[in-house]
Amino acid sequence: MAFEYLTNAPLAQAKQEYLELLIRNGFASQTETIRVQDACGRVTAAAVYAHISAPHYPASAMDGIALAARITFGAGETTPVTLQPDRFVVVDTGDPIPEGCDAVVMVEDLVKNEDGSVRLYAAAAPWQHIRQIGEDICAGEMILPSHTEISPSAIGAILAGGVMEVSVIRRPVVGIIPTGDEIIAPIPDPKPGDIMEFNSSIFSAMLTRWGAVPHTYPIVPDNFQRIKAAVEEALAACDIVLLNAGSSAGREDYSTQVIRELGGVLYHGIAIKPGKPAILGYQGPKPVLGVPGYPVSGILVLEEFLKPLITYWNRTGMAAPVYQEAVLSRAIVSGLKYQEFIRVRMGRVGDKLTASPLSRGSGVVSSFMKADGILEIPQGVEGYEAGSTVRVRMLRPVSELEHTLVAIGSHDPLLDELADMIHRADAELYMSSTHVGSMGGIMAVRRGETHIAGIHLLDEKDGSYNAAFVRRYFPKGGVRLVECVGRTQGLMLQQGNPKNIREITDLTAPGIRYVNRQKGSGTRILMDYLCKKYHLTADSIYGYDREEFTHMSVAAQIDAGTGDAGMGIYSAAKLYGLDFLPICMEQYDLLIPDAAWDTPMVRRLLDVLQSEMFRAKLESMGGYQLDHPGQVRERF
Amino acid sequence: MAFEYLTNAPLAQAKQEYLELLIRNGFASQTETIRVQDACGRVTAAAVYAHISAPHYPASAMDGIALAARITFGAGETTPVTLQPDRFVVVDTGDPIPEGCDAVVMVEDLVKNEDGSVRLYAAAAPWQHIRQIGEDICAGEMILPSHTEISPSAIGAILAGGVMEVSVIRRPVVGIIPTGDEIIAPIPDPKPGDIMEFNSSIFSAMLTRWGAVPHTYPIVPDNFQRIKAAVEEALAACDIVLLNAGSSAGREDYSTQVIRELGGVLYHGIAIKPGKPAILGYQGPKPVLGVPGYPVSGILVLEEFLKPLITYWNRTGMAAPVYQEAVLSRAIVSGLKYQEFIRVRMGRVGDKLTASPLSRGSGVVSSFMKADGILEIPQGVEGYEAGSTVRVRMLRPVSELEHTLVAIGSHDPLLDELADMIHRADAELYMSSTHVGSMGGIMAVRRGETHIAGIHLLDEKDGSYNAAFVRRYFPKGGVRLVECVGRTQGLMLQQGNPKNIREITDLTAPGIRYVNRQKGSGTRILMDYLCKKYHLTADSIYGYDREEFTHMSVAAQIDAGTGDAGMGIYSAAKLYGLDFLPICMEQYDLLIPDAAWDTPMVRRLLDVLQSEMFRAKLESMGGYQLDHPGQVRERF
Repeated sequence: MAFEYLTNAPLAQAKQEYLELLIRNGFASQTETIRVQDACGRVTAAAVYAHISAPHYPASAMDGIALAARITFGAGETTPVTLQPDRFVVVDTGDPIPEGCDAVVMVEDLVKNEDGSVRLYAAAAPWQHIRQIGEDICAGEMILPSHTEISPSAIGAILAGGVMEVSVIRRPVVGIIPTGDEIIAPIPDPKPGDIMEFNSSIFSAMLTRWGAVPHTYPIVPDNFQRIKAAVEEALAACDIVLLNAGSSAGREDYSTQVIRELGGVLYHGIAIKPGKPAILGYQGPKPVLGVPGYPVSGILVLEEFLKPLITYWNRTGMAAPVYQEAVLSRAIVSGLKYQEFIRVRMGRVGDKLTASPLSRGSGVVSSFMKADGILEIPQGVEGYEAGSTVRVRMLRPVSELEHTLVAIGSHDPLLDELADMIHRADAELYMSSTHVGSMGGIMAVRRGETHIAGIHLLDEKDGSYNAAFVRRYFPKGGVRLVECVGRTQGLMLQQGNPKNIREITDLTAPGIRYVNRQKGSGTRILMDYLCKKYHLTADSIYGYDREEFTHMSVAAQIDAGTGDAGMGIYSAAKLYGLDFLPICMEQYDLLIPDAAWDTPMVRRLLDVLQSEMFRAKLESMGGYQLDHPGQVRERF
Repeated sequence: MAFEYLTNAPLAQAKQEYLELLIRNGFASQTETIRVQDACGRVTAAAVYAHISAPHYPASAMDGIALAARITFGAGETTPVTLQPDRFVVVDTGDPIPEGCDAVVMVEDLVKNEDGSVRLYAAAAPWQHIRQIGEDICAGEMILPSHTEISPSAIGAILAGGVMEVSVIRRPVVGIIPTGDEIIAPIPDPKPGDIMEFNSSIFSAMLTRWGAVPHTYPIVPDNFQRIKAAVEEALAACDIVLLNAGSSAGREDYSTQVIRELGGVLYHGIAIKPGKPAILGYQGPKPVLGVPGYPVSGILVLEEFLKPLITYWNRTGMAAPVYQEAVLSRAIVSGLKYQEFIRVRMGRVGDKLTASPLSRGSGVVSSFMKADGILEIPQGVEGYEAGSTVRVRMLRPVSELEHTLVAIGSHDPLLDELADMIHRADAELYMSSTHVGSMGGIMAVRRGETHIAGIHLLDEKDGSYNAAFVRRYFPKGGVRLVECVGRTQGLMLQQGNPKNIREITDLTAPGIRYVNRQKGSGTRILMDYLCKKYHLTADSIYGYDREEFTHMSVAAQIDAGTGDAGMGIYSAAKLYGLDFLPICMEQYDLLIPDAAWDTPMVRRLLDVLQSEMFRAKLESMGGYQLDHPGQVRERF
């Protein structure tokens, strides 16, 4: 059962050696000839030369009359020249210049007489208002060089040059082979143990964006011969093959062996995280890439190893990545052995750009969806401290971040609804939320890293909410506390309450498994307070150290039966159809620093809070009390 | 015949009023439901919520064994715990956690005994190496808000959330109706007077990029009833209709009348150049846009009026345009009456970013293809002086310009071949050439606006080339003169030399029409010198003021029979099959400032100049003599 990766090859070295090896083996782009009309975004395989000139004949550039310029010489304001109809030809824009004519007079510069003659009050210069042959493009001229992307206007220029077909680089066909016994095609209601195969859908979308043609093969079970046959089939039909999963050190790992038998393996094991079980394989000139099964690992391996191959093939040149300096909101520890790629959510508040690490789990595909940038921690660096300035590779334009409302603080599903309503109301505005609990939110406001923070902090002294904390942490003021909602907190219990939990003290009963929230969250503070009030110790409640980060994830555990009770809000319990034991109605407010008050994002937020749509939505979610959402409770 | 545009509406006002009117009439996006796998790049019509949690069951995060954590308590380096096979379950990554287990021990942390039992040297913490339900996404959670573009990783997240179909904004269908009696579909060999209809191909490509679905109708002749019927048909099937051409003040202009009869016209005539004859029409909520026939005008009208409508429909938000300050290389005069859009080619040389106006002809579609940016001259501004700093809306990223070799100077088709070879050799490098003649090139080097300048300047005193000029214009040195090619200059004549031109002095004969090059070009200087030598005055040569900017365009006029002779290089005459009367072999050199010498672009240029490929190409073009291309003749 023991297994070791063969290598821990440094990323840059592995990438370079892989491309060089493939090129030595004959990896190169291929070409095809297509209609010019279909060529937008394609890359020329060879220079495109004009077949004819454009215009291909001397053409009138105006609506008017064509004539020989010399017959107008002498015409002036006081000495008009009158021309009989046989001395000129009426022309429209684009008409050919008749034999013997070498000038056009615009219709606006003519006076038409009743007998059909015209009067001119100015002489025409030879060749005036005539588009000369080749004004746009001359026959034989190079319209586009090789290896150039064809733009919409280039399509026009090529057609104008009398060229109907172009030789372009054929898009590489990439075969994707999903493998694994547990793997199934996505369905709405999978059984436990079913692993839904959505990597091929992610990879296909990435490949299409990069200018490749994905082709996904049926799922292959973990069987050496069948995997080998599938790779052989794909190699016969495709330019590049991806063998997904089966490349980690699991019981049924045939990828390396299959690729070795069909060709060769340069490296199995790269010093990156996630993505280390990648296999850089090949059959002659054709890359065969072993891609780890976890989606985040797979995405990174494709970006690092496949994208350069496709770029090389397509001859487009890699777009230089955009880096931006940002302040790290939390410390990150990284292994010295690997180059690590951390997905970060970014926020622009005032002049400060912040990067907050997202989940590092390689199965958490939503972390890539939410990421605004990637923090690359080099091999040999053990991490960065909170507050340090780091360079982030950007996945979204900074301009978009400048229009994004940053919410860091306590979690509530209503924040997602606010994000939705704000962006619906104004397509230029966005909102991003990070859940770090109420205390985390207060700290983020103090550090100037958020526009708003959702907080619900119980003052144990008098049972009041929030204001006392704000006063303590902002002795100099500079913030407003804005009313949001009242919400019902209570114990979420399995449907039908099979363990018969009736009050907080029942949580210590044998066999009761509690699911807790993380320290610093308002809900955890409430629970700690209740324990103190009822003289319960953490040790006496089984699962008190099992921490989840949102109301919904607590509800999800209880719904799945891996926990019996957890503190949370009514709307989460209702969503999962859980029983609910109400404990209290708490004040969930928004803390907003003065500096953010007049931003378009906060203005829009306040509008939405006061809207009928917001009220209706929260009423449908249940457990909320809306008095005057959006109203300032107190200015500090 | 007299005709006036109804309006000269300011652009910003017209755009805003048009959108507002359409929205009042009910212009709005429509939705459709599609498979998630097909949704990359599409925009959500409504928020997407997870149907199930991901993972949807507690899953092993590692390959190893699942067990109840408590049975490992007490294990340590010196106190291993041995577990019989009935106490644990072997699990692979992704396997469900069996009933009664709440921890996974990694395969790497196990020692397997021969009897099937395993030894552990460390205790397992509860829930270690287990992916909790909803670690990625919780059922009921909002995965994506409304009006959000679906990325590849979002496809994964949506499928992981058990959602198989999404409601997205249906792409608007845009009908394109080309009109005009002279208009034909593109063919390789059109007859004089045929106007090739490639606007619909340009527009289709633009529309596809903007996220619309183009549908081009057959060409409709200039007939009121047929145009009206075509627009009616398109309105029945499409969300937006473009009526191309027929919107200028020509003889056969039915567009406005047709649109008025079918709906209404907000404005006919906008204060922009090019593009002023645009018609902002509608039928109820459906825009009907009258688009001018010239491609450059059409492109601008689509960008200004259609793109905002599609952006509004698609809810994507307009990407903020990127502006860059640049130094204008030539003066521009603009009419006060219009907002003018000037296509500019840009060059980054050292720290200086230069903008050079391209052809302003609205029929010159290649000007859009070549443009790196657009200089917008507001209404009421009469232009800018050379050397002034202007703000340019960028069409290419500045980073690309930083890798672009700028060539400003004398024209030779070999420059296009160099551009091709440089980019073929290194996909990251580009070359852009601007033809301003040899003297223009020297001035561009002096102003620090070019990396290289092609020059061929005859010193009348001794018949030598280039060095004397460089010495005069660079008294302090700082430049190198690099050998390029010798090339044969001579008189290009119609095939078979029907006018029997045997020497320069024959050009004054009656009926001979000369085609000249522009002042400041080396070829013009040569011709002026020859006239002086042979005592010919400019007046005595018919057409001496008819100026073309390249060897090829002179050849094209002679080939078409609108001129009889013109000075130019042999390769241009050969390309057109013209007769050629050799006059001299001249030195065409490259002037390179020291500051540019060590750039990757110039390094690559020198490599290419010395290559066998370059030599072979020029030999095939004819009339070139290659001695030591790429060698420094003299350093000044």
